[in-house]
Amino acid sequence: MTNTALLERRNRLFGKGSTLFYEQPIQLVRGEGVFIYDESGRRYVDLFNNVPCVGHCHPHFVKTVSSQLRTLNVHSRYLHQSILDYADRLISTHHDSIESVIFSCTGTEANEIALQMARLATGGRGIICTDATYHGNSAEVSKLTGAKSNQGDVRSIRFPETYRTDAEDPLNDHLKELQLVIESFREDGTPFAGMLVCPILANEGLPNIPKGYMAEAAKIVHQAGGVFMADEVQAGLCRTGMWWGYQMMGVVPDIVTMGKPLGGGIPLAATAASTEITETFRRHTRYFNTCASSPVQAAAGNAVLDIIEKDNLQENVTTIGHFLHERFLQIQQKHKTIGDVRGHGLFRGLEFVTDLKSKTPDKQAAVRVVNALKERGFLTGNAGAYDNVLKVRPPLVFSKNDAEEFLDALEQTLEDLDA
Amino acid sequence: MTNTALLERRNRLFGKGSTLFYEQPIQLVRGEGVFIYDESGRRYVDLFNNVPCVGHCHPHFVKTVSSQLRTLNVHSRYLHQSILDYADRLISTHHDSIESVIFSCTGTEANEIALQMARLATGGRGIICTDATYHGNSAEVSKLTGAKSNQGDVRSIRFPETYRTDAEDPLNDHLKELQLVIESFREDGTPFAGMLVCPILANEGLPNIPKGYMAEAAKIVHQAGGVFMADEVQAGLCRTGMWWGYQMMGVVPDIVTMGKPLGGGIPLAATAASTEITETFRRHTRYFNTCASSPVQAAAGNAVLDIIEKDNLQENVTTIGHFLHERFLQIQQKHKTIGDVRGHGLFRGLEFVTDLKSKTPDKQAAVRVVNALKERGFLTGNAGAYDNVLKVRPPLVFSKNDAEEFLDALEQTLEDLDA
Repeated sequence: MTNTALLERRNRLFGKGSTLFYEQPIQLVRGEGVFIYDESGRRYVDLFNNVPCVGHCHPHFVKTVSSQLRTLNVHSRYLHQSILDYADRLISTHHDSIESVIFSCTGTEANEIALQMARLATGGRGIICTDATYHGNSAEVSKLTGAKSNQGDVRSIRFPETYRTDAEDPLNDHLKELQLVIESFREDGTPFAGMLVCPILANEGLPNIPKGYMAEAAKIVHQAGGVFMADEVQAGLCRTGMWWGYQMMGVVPDIVTMGKPLGGGIPLAATAASTEITETFRRHTRYFNTCASSPVQAAAGNAVLDIIEKDNLQENVTTIGHFLHERFLQIQQKHKTIGDVRGHGLFRGLEFVTDLKSKTPDKQAAVRVVNALKERGFLTGNAGAYDNVLKVRPPLVFSKNDAEEFLDALEQTLEDLDA
Repeated sequence: MTNTALLERRNRLFGKGSTLFYEQPIQLVRGEGVFIYDESGRRYVDLFNNVPCVGHCHPHFVKTVSSQLRTLNVHSRYLHQSILDYADRLISTHHDSIESVIFSCTGTEANEIALQMARLATGGRGIICTDATYHGNSAEVSKLTGAKSNQGDVRSIRFPETYRTDAEDPLNDHLKELQLVIESFREDGTPFAGMLVCPILANEGLPNIPKGYMAEAAKIVHQAGGVFMADEVQAGLCRTGMWWGYQMMGVVPDIVTMGKPLGGGIPLAATAASTEITETFRRHTRYFNTCASSPVQAAAGNAVLDIIEKDNLQENVTTIGHFLHERFLQIQQKHKTIGDVRGHGLFRGLEFVTDLKSKTPDKQAAVRVVNALKERGFLTGNAGAYDNVLKVRPPLVFSKNDAEEFLDALEQTLEDLDA
């Protein structure tokens, strides 16, 4: 079916306004490793998707999940062993204080649980997030998108960063703001519950965060009686080269939420915390999720961990991530549209600006690059607080050859656009 | 691993208090058709689970989903055909006024979307539900569990039924209550948005609903400017012998939510409505669900529909459901603990009471029956507003032989307990 016909059907069946990537959307029919193919057989290199983190249609993943589908798939009001094996294994990748886990299906659901846990553990209501974040689409979690700094149960702080700040001491500038918002809760009698943040500020555009910020923020949150929550839906599962983004940022959260890559394409999300926090949640709720904690979720989750371990993907992320970063820095020297180069592991951002001095965000430049790269066969996206950051986030199996192929295309794209 | 060891691990990993069925929980290792097997190889007949609606591990389902896992699994910001084929097919089972659909992963997510749609379509806030319902576990949707009749944005009415009512005219008695709650919204300036209800009142215990209630309720809701929403997570997909519970109840909803059986074990849920309602939702939100509208969800959904159609499961549900009902009525004659026998298709309830006159709910009797049936190798559950209803909800492939085997076991169980 042609793209035009699919678009017409899509508008009719999903309603006009459902989001699509690229000025000319692409139709996908097959995936393999870092490659995806359209209906004409054209190959694209995937530098965007973190759900198929071990590569598209990895044979071990397909085999493990298919085998479980053939054997058993039930909910968790019966005992079955595999989900407990997976829970044990997932928890073992975390800090010792993370002792237990509640599975769900999406990042939104994981963050719903985290907010309920925080409120039950502290008796508070007030939640702090950053001002350019996204943690999910439910009524409660979406309050964190576009939250105000001074009203409601959910309040925002400017996201901490070093690129655009005027402050002499960005660390203390941002920490002070956190304290002020905590104070604002106190002033109008809203008991404080905690802070939920992506440790690497993925949606904010992967800014360089003042060194030590997350640990200091957690300390301030604790002193105010709150819990510190890390949303690892994008940052986690070796994406940065560490198992979890909070490890990269040197902070230990009280509650961690995980999603997207966890199930490698089978909906699987998780909220992990200390035994005390989890059992408080259990005592006050009868939380049950029919589609979660299933043997098929366990198979998917275990297969992803198998591949990460067996193929040394953590090491690959660090090596290739470092290689990309060095080359991005070289490319930046040649193009004064690139204001900043940053990120971690295989999650990198190039920030486009109209000029290096004003640092005015240039969303259109990022959009042009994304669309031009797509025409060359490379799938990236634009993101960040100003939508002006080229988001480079290939599967964890991305090789040096893949990286070189992409870097060549990026250089040519930038040269064409400069011309 | 022994059940004791699994229980210990589960308490440690999931936190004490996560729910399990049966006084002595069972460990499951394999499923096939209507049967599930424990670690010792013991066979159980599944009369409870509606997610594997086409039977556990149906070969066509396993093959179709496995094949898609091997081919492609991406999100819906790219074009791919299969999810549109599935959307078309799903919508074609609905009333003509249901024209478009938004996919998600769980019933909770589907109901989150429905509530947002209702509020955006009407500009209202006030939602009406019944007083013994459950529509999901998010902060917003769980407001419908235990909602009060006279305060807040979500208000409840007594669920309509004919067994325990004292009213001379139960239909008008219940409709009047609905009007009063709508009036209560008007009185304190909460604009009304709509009513969300399971058309067969599954969680309420499948009561006989005064004839015509749902259609009259929808009319009243419309007159007050609200939308009528049917939660088909339990009632839908041929469970009653009709495609959707609302068809069985003779009402046309404005918004329909679907979940559990839709994906046959792959998390898949949907919210369907008119083009107008869906496009209003699209205009006001940027709803996107990474794990939803995927080719694997499409494969799972299509495989379930294939099997329902090819194996004439709709007819099977009606035939076997009728057979069960007739035999339940005969069994009721012999046991004065069974106050009421009801339900639709392959979703049946036997209500246990201490005596037929007072109709005092006897939860303990239902719990005893459920546990005794489990010991005999038949998996059922207890449910309803008073937890005193034996819930009989086998996969749609349940045969007459299966039914006879179960009925024998039920009769023996009831005789033993009467003795």
